[in-house]
Amino acid sequence: MPTSSQYLYGVLGISVCGILIAAGLARSVIRKDAGTPEMRRISDAIKLGAEAFLRRQSRTIFLLALALAVIIFVGYSLSSGGSALAMRMTISFVLGAACSALAGFSGMWVSIRTNIRVASAARFGMRGAMRIALRGGAVTGFSVVALSLLGVAALFLVFGGLADPITVPRQIVAFGFGASFVALFAQLGGGIFTKAADVGADLVGKVEVGIPEDDHRNPAVIADLVGDNVGDCAGRGADLFESTAAENIGAMILAAALYPALGIKGILFPLVVRALGLLGSIAGVFAVGGSEESDPMHSLNRGFYVAVALATAGFGAAVYLLLDGNWNFFFAGLLGIATSILFVFITQYYTETKYRPVQDIAKACLTGAATNIISGFAVGLECVAAPVLVIVAAILGSYYLGAHAGIANVSPHSAGLFGTAIATMGMLSTAGYILAMDTFGPITDNAGGIVEMSHNVATPEGDLVRARMDRLDAVGNTTKALTKGYAVGSAALAAFLLFSAYIDQVKALLHLPAESAFPIDLGQVPVFAGALLGAMLVFLFSSFAIKAVGKCAQTIIQEVRRQFQADPGIMAGTSDPDYSTCVDIVTRSALKEMIVPGLLAVAGPVLVGVVFRQFHAGATAVAAFLMVGTIAGILMALLMNNSGGAWDNAKKFIEMGNYGGKGSEAHKAAVVGDTVGDPFKDTAGPSLHVLIKLLSTITLVAAPLFL
Amino acid sequence: MPTSSQYLYGVLGISVCGILIAAGLARSVIRKDAGTPEMRRISDAIKLGAEAFLRRQSRTIFLLALALAVIIFVGYSLSSGGSALAMRMTISFVLGAACSALAGFSGMWVSIRTNIRVASAARFGMRGAMRIALRGGAVTGFSVVALSLLGVAALFLVFGGLADPITVPRQIVAFGFGASFVALFAQLGGGIFTKAADVGADLVGKVEVGIPEDDHRNPAVIADLVGDNVGDCAGRGADLFESTAAENIGAMILAAALYPALGIKGILFPLVVRALGLLGSIAGVFAVGGSEESDPMHSLNRGFYVAVALATAGFGAAVYLLLDGNWNFFFAGLLGIATSILFVFITQYYTETKYRPVQDIAKACLTGAATNIISGFAVGLECVAAPVLVIVAAILGSYYLGAHAGIANVSPHSAGLFGTAIATMGMLSTAGYILAMDTFGPITDNAGGIVEMSHNVATPEGDLVRARMDRLDAVGNTTKALTKGYAVGSAALAAFLLFSAYIDQVKALLHLPAESAFPIDLGQVPVFAGALLGAMLVFLFSSFAIKAVGKCAQTIIQEVRRQFQADPGIMAGTSDPDYSTCVDIVTRSALKEMIVPGLLAVAGPVLVGVVFRQFHAGATAVAAFLMVGTIAGILMALLMNNSGGAWDNAKKFIEMGNYGGKGSEAHKAAVVGDTVGDPFKDTAGPSLHVLIKLLSTITLVAAPLFL
Repeated sequence: MPTSSQYLYGVLGISVCGILIAAGLARSVIRKDAGTPEMRRISDAIKLGAEAFLRRQSRTIFLLALALAVIIFVGYSLSSGGSALAMRMTISFVLGAACSALAGFSGMWVSIRTNIRVASAARFGMRGAMRIALRGGAVTGFSVVALSLLGVAALFLVFGGLADPITVPRQIVAFGFGASFVALFAQLGGGIFTKAADVGADLVGKVEVGIPEDDHRNPAVIADLVGDNVGDCAGRGADLFESTAAENIGAMILAAALYPALGIKGILFPLVVRALGLLGSIAGVFAVGGSEESDPMHSLNRGFYVAVALATAGFGAAVYLLLDGNWNFFFAGLLGIATSILFVFITQYYTETKYRPVQDIAKACLTGAATNIISGFAVGLECVAAPVLVIVAAILGSYYLGAHAGIANVSPHSAGLFGTAIATMGMLSTAGYILAMDTFGPITDNAGGIVEMSHNVATPEGDLVRARMDRLDAVGNTTKALTKGYAVGSAALAAFLLFSAYIDQVKALLHLPAESAFPIDLGQVPVFAGALLGAMLVFLFSSFAIKAVGKCAQTIIQEVRRQFQADPGIMAGTSDPDYSTCVDIVTRSALKEMIVPGLLAVAGPVLVGVVFRQFHAGATAVAAFLMVGTIAGILMALLMNNSGGAWDNAKKFIEMGNYGGKGSEAHKAAVVGDTVGDPFKDTAGPSLHVLIKLLSTITLVAAPLFL
Repeated sequence: MPTSSQYLYGVLGISVCGILIAAGLARSVIRKDAGTPEMRRISDAIKLGAEAFLRRQSRTIFLLALALAVIIFVGYSLSSGGSALAMRMTISFVLGAACSALAGFSGMWVSIRTNIRVASAARFGMRGAMRIALRGGAVTGFSVVALSLLGVAALFLVFGGLADPITVPRQIVAFGFGASFVALFAQLGGGIFTKAADVGADLVGKVEVGIPEDDHRNPAVIADLVGDNVGDCAGRGADLFESTAAENIGAMILAAALYPALGIKGILFPLVVRALGLLGSIAGVFAVGGSEESDPMHSLNRGFYVAVALATAGFGAAVYLLLDGNWNFFFAGLLGIATSILFVFITQYYTETKYRPVQDIAKACLTGAATNIISGFAVGLECVAAPVLVIVAAILGSYYLGAHAGIANVSPHSAGLFGTAIATMGMLSTAGYILAMDTFGPITDNAGGIVEMSHNVATPEGDLVRARMDRLDAVGNTTKALTKGYAVGSAALAAFLLFSAYIDQVKALLHLPAESAFPIDLGQVPVFAGALLGAMLVFLFSSFAIKAVGKCAQTIIQEVRRQFQADPGIMAGTSDPDYSTCVDIVTRSALKEMIVPGLLAVAGPVLVGVVFRQFHAGATAVAAFLMVGTIAGILMALLMNNSGGAWDNAKKFIEMGNYGGKGSEAHKAAVVGDTVGDPFKDTAGPSLHVLIKLLSTITLVAAPLFL
């Protein structure tokens, strides 16, 4: 049997390997052919725009993070922990923020270089294009998971976790908070950017002057393509970085309660499982082959099955080695894996054209935009039911598996909570592969845009390339939708884990024994008030996020109109529009608009804790704030993601020739639904996943303030 | 000092007086001139339709209630309470259901006879018309409050409450459940009917064949007018009947905890306050005078101030007589009154044309229907913040006033909960007047419709009458919107009171001392699962309610189209459409569609309790289900009511000549928002108020099942 330090070094080794493999993939992708000069012109514009956005966004987030780091340092220095703890908290926070930013930046750096290579490869065949897109996406997937693991494991090692495994996980909670903090702004800023650019480009381009989507004459077209990268790609990367980091730390804190029975091995278990899952995901990506004729979705699915199988095997091995072969915990992990698969199915049911909900919405378009909206909203409200039942089953099932695992010297409650933590690990074990599939989406989307814009003349060869890209793009849309379901499901499980960790943290701060009761009693007035405020925050945050898109879109609409008026040559095709000004305007506006909702999310729980502390109920009111805020957040995210996805595909269903097809009255009604769904599914919904985890991590860090 | 039996008989006397005054008002209204034969033709059609709907609805509800009464009787007979308790529970349930139905039926009976008298009086002046409308509305207001009070007080007396004041309030909880049960179906059925008829009439009439609203050629026009009665008038009456009944019983249960200090007087306090509030409301209605020139809204407001002032004085007197003059409780009551006023202001801010939110939405119509929807939805999400802060302040404030009231021999927690109960009493003390103002809305709406349909020729005299009716109608719209805000606010406060009562009930069933802790610990897995399921129920219920409107509207759309095709004479004005078939179809469809959401609401909490009982967490999981379901319900109801109201008024704002006025592209976009908002604000939103209280009362009744 290896020793605990060998396990830890093994984890560190695997995470470094993951980073090296990501780098190798990046190198191999970049060596591919970079297409025609015309393609490069488009691609360079996207690259410039995306990098300019990221640079500015990073600067904004850096300043906010710096301010927060100072607050954390000063706050902890003044609190009982003293300056040593303050230093550790601050280092963790900064490292979490930096790793998250680095993972996002490097993934994006590769993605915006991959898109043109995919477009170029599509000239010669589908298989090559698909492989390049997936490998480009895998750079994000691997670097996110590996950097998160490396950060947590390194902090654990450096802070002396091998000697003091119970205290150290509590000292690195700020790593998760740093990651959440960056993730929130990355997702909000990117989400606002992408939808504002999309809405702006469509409203003036398609509706007002009547040019097709992705037409090179539209001044906002590059901003739209940049948006795909900064919103979908960087945003989701930050989201899952945060999930994996927070899950790791939360699970280690919960494992501390099992120390009497499992020792340090229980605490290392989450790290080992994640490392083995990463290896499974890497193998999955390399297992994707496929021939020129086969369905690309099938090839991607094969890789996913490989990743799942290997992750499951790794799980079993880790349970055998570290948890004394207690198979109850293995089954809890399987429950988590099953949850991830069920979430993917449910998301498909509610958002794909072949099932009832989307078809009902499409049919409602026959009686106009209003019935379309009502019908889609009703689907959004309905779609929360199945996921909630799955989450309830997963949490209850894994809790009872844990509680009945027969762990000696430990209360069944603590063992049960560890069971729910293990289910979360199971759900997140294939995060690397899922993220690679997800990033595949914006890459093929962009590649499609490049092909569209650089092949203006309709040649048979051009048509073939476009047909190949359309097929890849459709697959990318599917994977994007599926990972959104996965992200919200894992956020829900991770959140439950995290507020158990919060209660543990509070008990530790109050020097209560780990087994003592610390009820979050909803029947108490301040606790109920906290719960009400938590749910309210979710509504208010969503409102701000949605309004931000509207405000930001206004700026780009005005700029596009201005350009069309100022230079009639643009529409005639004789002069080029000024793409970069559009990008610049939407960048500045998106970054401005992300500040208020972002700060609301950060300040909300702290304010509640500090105010209710006056009523001697700071910690419990915040716990209820967090838990009920999480419940409202999960439901609202499901509502927004799925209604948005369903409206999008109802439009596509009509465009496939149903109910009058493109250009019919029904289609016009469907376009309204699609536009309404945009900020729902790409701004507010995904931001809510992040919000949930931010609430959990900030309360973990700020807990001393509430006591 | 009067004795306790004198207080109780006084309460009974006042409630009987209230009923007699309602009857007298009804008589005086019906004696008024019933208009021209043409008016009577329209009015009779409305009357026939409304009564046919109510008859069928009553039959459906009666059958459902009968089944439930049997279940309650059998269930309680088998439980530890024995057949004596079973009989009392069943009698209470049946009486609650019957009184609620009676109040609704009689109010409606008068309303549909008042509308034509208002229309007739409008020929001679505004003042007379307004007085008749208010007095007709007051019949509903007084009979609802008086019957609810009479039912509770009579049960308390008959069950021997004077001898055993601690146990008896627990035996009459089923009165509240019976009322809630009828209210849920009344509101759902009426809400589905009214919006389906509205949407159906508009879609075919206004959009497809281009005839104005309330045009007599539209076969659905009578159904639309019937809908105003069965939805707005009967629905809200049942809603407030339930609030007042549930509040009375819940407050009596909480007062039992203060028995050592206050004796039976504390338990009688809620009844006395309600009786005095009823007297205040009666005086308020009679104080409404006004001249021909004065603004009708001012006159109504003056009556409201009279009612508030008298209710406050009554509150003070009751505190002096029954609560040993403990002014902390008086201030708690004032907090409740202040809450009701703040809710009215907040509702006005978010839904009236003169404030920013509605104007922003109207502006968003300039860029089309999609931006209108996004903007309105964002307002709906935003508008939950202020009411939540008010509720939190009211609950916390009244709790601390109660806890620091210095009640001897009682825990501060129990005294604090009684404080929150008193705030709820304060909020509901003017319910009679509010309901009179509310019913004023559908009466003037109908009167306007009658005037519109019976004055086809544009004469100067006809124009004058129409102008008078438009003014009254506008006032009616305002009062309807305000009472919706009031209803959701009082539902929120009453719900908090009711789940405190539920916890008391569970402790009594478990033979735990009243002062013992019974935490609803959200950190426990089953409790958290219950919470998640409670919030989910609200979403699912809303989805069903919204979908029901769509399905029901489809049936009426087909019928209207069929009639136009079958008889071209209808459009030409040479033959009358078949109004009654339309009413009949929408009646049957609405009653069919109300069953599923209704049963979901009833079965949901029971199922959760019974399933989680297997995990030894039935009572606590249900409590969390109830509390978090209530939180989600309050927020969702606010979202739906206010976004719907705001869309409605954004359309009106454009029709006032802004952004292009009627017929412009902006107006078309605004119509989409208005249509989307219809099922939100008139079906799902108000049904959620009722749902919240149904969840509270059903869990009170079914509590023995969960243990």
